[in-house]
Amino acid sequence: MNDVIKLLNNHRSLRKFTDEKLSEDTIRTLVGAAQSASTSSYVQAYSIMGVTDPEKKKALREISTQSYVEHNGHLFVFVVDFYRHKELAKQAGTEISYDKTENLIVGVVDASLAAQNLATAAESMGLGICYIGSLRNDIKKAGEILGLPEGAFVLFGMVAGYPELGEDGSKKERLPFEAVYHENTYQKIEEVQDDIDAYDQRISDYYSSRTNGKRDDKWSEQVTEMLSKKQRLDVDTLLKEKGFLRQ
Amino acid sequence: MNDVIKLLNNHRSLRKFTDEKLSEDTIRTLVGAAQSASTSSYVQAYSIMGVTDPEKKKALREISTQSYVEHNGHLFVFVVDFYRHKELAKQAGTEISYDKTENLIVGVVDASLAAQNLATAAESMGLGICYIGSLRNDIKKAGEILGLPEGAFVLFGMVAGYPELGEDGSKKERLPFEAVYHENTYQKIEEVQDDIDAYDQRISDYYSSRTNGKRDDKWSEQVTEMLSKKQRLDVDTLLKEKGFLRQ
Repeated sequence: MNDVIKLLNNHRSLRKFTDEKLSEDTIRTLVGAAQSASTSSYVQAYSIMGVTDPEKKKALREISTQSYVEHNGHLFVFVVDFYRHKELAKQAGTEISYDKTENLIVGVVDASLAAQNLATAAESMGLGICYIGSLRNDIKKAGEILGLPEGAFVLFGMVAGYPELGEDGSKKERLPFEAVYHENTYQKIEEVQDDIDAYDQRISDYYSSRTNGKRDDKWSEQVTEMLSKKQRLDVDTLLKEKGFLRQ
Repeated sequence: MNDVIKLLNNHRSLRKFTDEKLSEDTIRTLVGAAQSASTSSYVQAYSIMGVTDPEKKKALREISTQSYVEHNGHLFVFVVDFYRHKELAKQAGTEISYDKTENLIVGVVDASLAAQNLATAAESMGLGICYIGSLRNDIKKAGEILGLPEGAFVLFGMVAGYPELGEDGSKKERLPFEAVYHENTYQKIEEVQDDIDAYDQRISDYYSSRTNGKRDDKWSEQVTEMLSKKQRLDVDTLLKEKGFLRQ
């Protein structure tokens, strides 16, 4: 296993950082690595924002409710962005649309590939990172804070920074290979049930050993609970306001 | 600049591979790296398929129209997948839903972060990769070929393999940092117009020098043309059939 794969396998989300800010040089390096990711048909349908204004960080923290949105080395926000394409088309006297489900997928994929490159680049420099999906708790307000125009919306944030001493995060075991990887034909649940059951038990044991038995939920219980809540219903409303999903 | 960042910056899509197939070990290593990526609230809303059956590869190639979908070291297909969550909830006597725009975003982000880790891991081993968004040319048929159940759809493919001798791909310059990175407040088009115009000119020169002047389109012309076509309208239909975007 080479060093790059070790780095990827060793990923864990970090949430406690020193006060040291990322330098302009580091930010440019990270954004450059992000931009090197593949992009669907060269469309580059995203922007990356850096938030340094303390008032804006505080306001975004309030949306996310997570303290590390305010306290970190740098706060990036990944934006799905067709605004510039629309404006450039206008200048050329024509019109484009990004109102189809396909366009939304392209934008979300493009931004995500870039973000994961940024995460890998940051970790290769000894920085820690954590994705901040909770900016979508109020996706409209998050976009207003950053001044996003039509065609652009907040997909997620990412905090990066120098890990606080002793802060090592924790790596949660993923679903077994057998349950996630399918050769040629998708395996129905009964074919992977044993693997998932064994995984569920390991996750339950993991929580139990970390909490002295106070918590012992299985993975399937966690995700069932999460997916039974109707969360972030206004994401759909905001996307339509911004010109997406109107087809 | 460290070696990982050099690797990321050096990414280019490769489309010509030797006949050598990826070993089972390599596939497991790549999938392991993919699974190490962050996942929204631990939901792991994706599956990764490996397609080795020549008939299926041929059928997927016909959808994509790209020869390398058939000729490669391995063909991965990334699937947004809430099927197993739904089945596990059923077993627990409850019901979950993934019919909201938010759920779609979570699944597309999860699968994309995993895919980009797989791409980086593959390139670190000297393999080349290319994303295959064109499986969405017929997203319904692509899913049928792979036997995808409700809750699961084909997001994109990725071919990987050992580069054919002399095959080095080509790296297309990305939008300038100044046009993609915004500090604190989104910059409207007029603030980045000069950067984009200069970029457009460089892209035009690049094509011109590679084609002896036969082609000299700017980036903005390319994306305007692409986005003025109404492509892949059935993605929306298929997603709704699969239980997404029904809210």
